[in-house]
Amino acid sequence: MIAEMVFVGTELLLGQIVNTNAAYLGERLSELGIDHYYQSVVGDNAKRLAGVLNLAVSRSDVVIACGGLGPTLDDLTRETVAELTGRELEFNDEIWQTIRRRRPNLPENMKRQAMVPKGAKVLPNDTGTAPGLAVPDQSDNKLFILLPGPPNEMKPMFDKYAVPVLLERMGERAVLVSRSLHFCEIGESPLEDRLMDLFAGQVDPTLATYAKPGHVQLRISTKAHTREEGLAKIAPVEEEIRRRVGEYIYGVDGTTLEEAVGELLLGRNWRVFIADAGTGGILASRLTDPPGANAWFAGALVAASTTQLVQMIMAEEQPGAGTGSEVGNGAAASEALAMDLAKHLLARMDGVSVGISILPAAPGEAVVALATAAGDTRTALAQWRGNTQDYRWRVSQAALGALRRLAMA
Amino acid sequence: MIAEMVFVGTELLLGQIVNTNAAYLGERLSELGIDHYYQSVVGDNAKRLAGVLNLAVSRSDVVIACGGLGPTLDDLTRETVAELTGRELEFNDEIWQTIRRRRPNLPENMKRQAMVPKGAKVLPNDTGTAPGLAVPDQSDNKLFILLPGPPNEMKPMFDKYAVPVLLERMGERAVLVSRSLHFCEIGESPLEDRLMDLFAGQVDPTLATYAKPGHVQLRISTKAHTREEGLAKIAPVEEEIRRRVGEYIYGVDGTTLEEAVGELLLGRNWRVFIADAGTGGILASRLTDPPGANAWFAGALVAASTTQLVQMIMAEEQPGAGTGSEVGNGAAASEALAMDLAKHLLARMDGVSVGISILPAAPGEAVVALATAAGDTRTALAQWRGNTQDYRWRVSQAALGALRRLAMA
Repeated sequence: MIAEMVFVGTELLLGQIVNTNAAYLGERLSELGIDHYYQSVVGDNAKRLAGVLNLAVSRSDVVIACGGLGPTLDDLTRETVAELTGRELEFNDEIWQTIRRRRPNLPENMKRQAMVPKGAKVLPNDTGTAPGLAVPDQSDNKLFILLPGPPNEMKPMFDKYAVPVLLERMGERAVLVSRSLHFCEIGESPLEDRLMDLFAGQVDPTLATYAKPGHVQLRISTKAHTREEGLAKIAPVEEEIRRRVGEYIYGVDGTTLEEAVGELLLGRNWRVFIADAGTGGILASRLTDPPGANAWFAGALVAASTTQLVQMIMAEEQPGAGTGSEVGNGAAASEALAMDLAKHLLARMDGVSVGISILPAAPGEAVVALATAAGDTRTALAQWRGNTQDYRWRVSQAALGALRRLAMA
Repeated sequence: MIAEMVFVGTELLLGQIVNTNAAYLGERLSELGIDHYYQSVVGDNAKRLAGVLNLAVSRSDVVIACGGLGPTLDDLTRETVAELTGRELEFNDEIWQTIRRRRPNLPENMKRQAMVPKGAKVLPNDTGTAPGLAVPDQSDNKLFILLPGPPNEMKPMFDKYAVPVLLERMGERAVLVSRSLHFCEIGESPLEDRLMDLFAGQVDPTLATYAKPGHVQLRISTKAHTREEGLAKIAPVEEEIRRRVGEYIYGVDGTTLEEAVGELLLGRNWRVFIADAGTGGILASRLTDPPGANAWFAGALVAASTTQLVQMIMAEEQPGAGTGSEVGNGAAASEALAMDLAKHLLARMDGVSVGISILPAAPGEAVVALATAAGDTRTALAQWRGNTQDYRWRVSQAALGALRRLAMA
């Protein structure tokens, strides 16, 4: 089956919004095993929209159109597709009542959103008002799937309501089941190397890796009659992957590294204090992001340089090692000082189980030192040439990775 | 003149990257006054790429194609456009030498990047290897502009080398000149209200606002024979805007709010210390982002709650007001406590000229208090319903806005 995407909206052409829906749907289609060769963007213009949709349906089996389902006059997708498929629009009171239950004071012009081409299937909108539609052509050879433009409405609707329609149309009474494994402290290439035979031999389930900033995602996908059956097919593959590289897997599906680390800290009843001259506070912001961070986050000192950080922490005590040292003293000296500071945090602050310090070691390079109240230590070196924001993110990623190791030990 | 964009790359179809180039070019074309009705995305497939380019050139005067200019075999744009325009590819030694000067150990297959369709204009690549190309069709009625896919190569090349080609083609021996003004502490609607007559009457220069997270951008654009002439046309419009709403303008063109604030702090020789239970460290990360932050950033304490922050700062001294208070005590109580803390920072830390404290006041609401060593104070309330990251960003935006006001006073 060949699908094609059409994105509708003048704001896309003008560059007022970035089309993130395209990447989302692209990933999904490839997981579903649906080929897709073209995407088009067109403005809110009836003639041009009809032209683009016509071309798309001439060369593809399924056309997924995003946007233009709203209540205003320049929302044209519903009407245009009704005309292309020769289907009359009917008012659907059930949709209207659902919309009104959610938003009681709606103006009457919102009624357009309750119009449905005769014979189309309604795709409920659990997070907004305009429902989606699956509209077959007269011969039922081709299908238009209309989705709303806002990503927070489009994504759940696609996953929950459009995917089953697509799978049924592929002749598969199947559901798509996938698990995403998230890896830290290992790059995409070494990961693929360790799993090479699994990648080479993959048929069902399929495997795909995605390199993200500072982490790698591996998605295992399969089609099955039920979600349970799918998960049962995925389980042995996941097990084999975990057997080989499980130590690097910090979470599954939507889990972030900070959530995974927070969970581990909670389990150990650990509280972390950070002395940070390396990420400008990014590590603190990540560790305080998950709900309940109060339990594991004891606080952070953020400084713009090693000197400043040492002054903040040590006050008059001044350790010998590297006081006054700045970027350029090299990794070894920075590492020794960082470990001093991490240990110092344990002694100085009440109720701290882990001290973390981060110091710049060289341009684009930072050392992370961790020390626990029980006497365990760990260090990590983070390197990244790029802009400040990417660099800091990756340093915080290295610190979280090291903290995770320590909490797992 | 009508332009159209074609984006080339299977990684776009698969959703491995988000197409941010589309939004960038969309903004630029609309500033240039060039109409554009369609965008297409197509994979690295010769036949389909030729089909998409053919369609594009049939309905537009200029086709801007991004991507597929690299050295590998699946980079097909150069060859495909040469064939479509009936122009032979010639090896251009000057390009090859330029590429080799930048990267001396290049393999021979990189030579493809030095192939130029006969009669095409080369658009230099100041930030990468593959140059861009402006390739007219045989009758010189239509033009293909080929740009590299990586945004850090595409954007400067488009602005510096493709824009002049486009303007010349529009029959205007002109350059596009624009100034972007950045506003904080004012929303898009109130800003447009205060400038309504300027927007209504605009012909040349043109005005356009863009709402960004926590700030508004206003771009003034014009075409002129020279950059100086353009700036002279923009100056009186900018002056009138500044007369009305100048107090909200924190910077021009690429300036960030943290850079603008850093500059002001530097000018006043102020050093800022932050006590932060509201942004999880984001404010510190922004204030330490510009180079030279050492001069104005004295450090930060980051906590996960008001209680924790108070404990960190006050140690045994415990102020009466709100010790032990958490989210929910309301804005007034939080504001009083925040001001206590801000003043306390001044007293407690050496060489601090401004103390800033940020406390949560209610769900989705934070108070910011600022106090200077000279006795000036300022407070701000930030509200945002959304995910944690957006919320924290906007709270940090409010804090920087208030700090800016204080530093300007």
